[in-house]
Amino acid sequence: MTQQRSLMKVLSGEAVWPPPVWFMRQAGRYLPEYRAVRADAGSFLDLCYTPKFAVEVTLQPIRRFGFDASILFSDILVVPHALGRDVRFEVGEGPRLDPISEADLSSLNVGRIASHLAPVFETVSTLRARLPAETTLLGFCGAPWTVATYMIAGRGTDDQGPAKHWAYAKPEALDRLMDILVEASVDYLCRQLDAGADAVQLFDTWAGSLDVRAFERFVVGPTQRIVAGVRARKPGAKIIGFPRGAGSRLPDFVRKTGVDAVSLDWSLDPVWAAGAVPVPTQGNLDPIRLLGSNEGIDAGVDAIMNAFRGKPHIFNLGHGITPEAPISAVERVLARVRAG
Amino acid sequence: MTQQRSLMKVLSGEAVWPPPVWFMRQAGRYLPEYRAVRADAGSFLDLCYTPKFAVEVTLQPIRRFGFDASILFSDILVVPHALGRDVRFEVGEGPRLDPISEADLSSLNVGRIASHLAPVFETVSTLRARLPAETTLLGFCGAPWTVATYMIAGRGTDDQGPAKHWAYAKPEALDRLMDILVEASVDYLCRQLDAGADAVQLFDTWAGSLDVRAFERFVVGPTQRIVAGVRARKPGAKIIGFPRGAGSRLPDFVRKTGVDAVSLDWSLDPVWAAGAVPVPTQGNLDPIRLLGSNEGIDAGVDAIMNAFRGKPHIFNLGHGITPEAPISAVERVLARVRAG
Repeated sequence: MTQQRSLMKVLSGEAVWPPPVWFMRQAGRYLPEYRAVRADAGSFLDLCYTPKFAVEVTLQPIRRFGFDASILFSDILVVPHALGRDVRFEVGEGPRLDPISEADLSSLNVGRIASHLAPVFETVSTLRARLPAETTLLGFCGAPWTVATYMIAGRGTDDQGPAKHWAYAKPEALDRLMDILVEASVDYLCRQLDAGADAVQLFDTWAGSLDVRAFERFVVGPTQRIVAGVRARKPGAKIIGFPRGAGSRLPDFVRKTGVDAVSLDWSLDPVWAAGAVPVPTQGNLDPIRLLGSNEGIDAGVDAIMNAFRGKPHIFNLGHGITPEAPISAVERVLARVRAG
Repeated sequence: MTQQRSLMKVLSGEAVWPPPVWFMRQAGRYLPEYRAVRADAGSFLDLCYTPKFAVEVTLQPIRRFGFDASILFSDILVVPHALGRDVRFEVGEGPRLDPISEADLSSLNVGRIASHLAPVFETVSTLRARLPAETTLLGFCGAPWTVATYMIAGRGTDDQGPAKHWAYAKPEALDRLMDILVEASVDYLCRQLDAGADAVQLFDTWAGSLDVRAFERFVVGPTQRIVAGVRARKPGAKIIGFPRGAGSRLPDFVRKTGVDAVSLDWSLDPVWAAGAVPVPTQGNLDPIRLLGSNEGIDAGVDAIMNAFRGKPHIFNLGHGITPEAPISAVERVLARVRAG
């Protein structure tokens, strides 16, 4: 069955046209049905860890829009939580963690991935059973560098300064944290694949915050080790990379890491990417375009469709959809993509 | 005399080695002598608008480190202030402006640049008289897109969402604001050149936040019009662009805008830039490296020096120096650059 799912064909290098389409953060606050479940589910982590709720919000955008892929509803910070770190989501404030110190590294427990994240694997297997047969199910995790930025700062930051300080002042300590996160991520992704995910995506939201030497060490290296580790346990597994902000470094990232496909942030010129990136691509409509005029939406969609016509491509946003996005704008994009 | 200044030689395409060096935000809080003047000067805008103070802080890093270029101490938001917008700097909070509406556009008064910013031009002429003859004096302004992000949001934002909303929902209104800022910037930069600036730099800190179509319209277009406008009044004027976050779009930006040189943010691979950018470059050490180990500093400097050896290059940071940077780290970088 997997071979017939359009998104999986693209990940294998086939140019499917019109391209399959899904949206990053498609289960989210722009949907009234999501907000209703969110209000009932308790904390944000309760929502992630309760299969009944997580399955429901994951399915909502599939029911409404018929996206070609469904992505597990979860958060990148469940991994540090599983490793033993305190993680809270405060309303309107974003995530809060106890900032990790070098001395804390030895307390991180990779062995807890299977047990702590068991509800996530249950969500994945339930989703696979309930999704339409033609819908690809994607699992995901945060890439080690991006997860580390939150673990070290204890919160989101403008410039990832605290983690960059580790990168430049005590890179060996950051290497140790990377190694732990690589091991945890491999286990977490393989268990998602075991539970029924068709492919997985690695989100490296803050890849662009490092200079090229540090990018090699803390973005390219750990990603390459995760790809190799997942493939060793799950031969043929398909892995999508997303080093946001990599800019001109993207082709090199793809070649060195061995990812099967790469997601393009909205800042990349799709014409450049179509020529320079040697694997299937996914992206890259600016989600803020959805808040704009119909003409602006159409122009944004057309620029991407024209750039990737005849290439293996998955239409998507270049970043997560925002809570303010009108449903009518999503419908407009989908109609235009599906018209080819 | 200008022709003998090393930085001006580089802007003319000559490979000077070791490269001239200066640091973005080199007059700043990492210097105790700056903090002392800052405490005496009143508000931040008072510091910008009082030649006695602005001259002193501009000269401080030249005295201490002998940088090859001096950059006028000012702020990009003096232009909207001159146009008639309310601008405040609140301690620890960053800038605050009254967010502009479409209806407010007609009240912006480009004719006030000469009078309102007269103290800035006095600062420039005093600086030129007091700087060592071999030191290049740079003027600057914010590029229209980046200035607009503050005018529209009324403050700094994570994602430049309010201005992006204009870009995608009412681009004609943003075009009008761009036209006003282009005209104001041309006048402002030409008056800095008249007062004695050797060259000028355009700071487009948020260039990376737009997708490629909007980047063409609101970054490339206005920059091109400023370059043309300044050259029409000041033939031969040298203009450095700095579209931060342009990534792989940088070579195209350079060709279309006609800038004489371009500043490279820290995220760019210097080896890539040395091959892909068709004009002299400036950059791109990550300022956070200055907070790290000596080995990390040296490695960062060497990567840049090796990439640009034999090319017209100005050594600089890839973003402004941070208040936490140790003076010893600045000295270490300078010694290493000057050793070639």
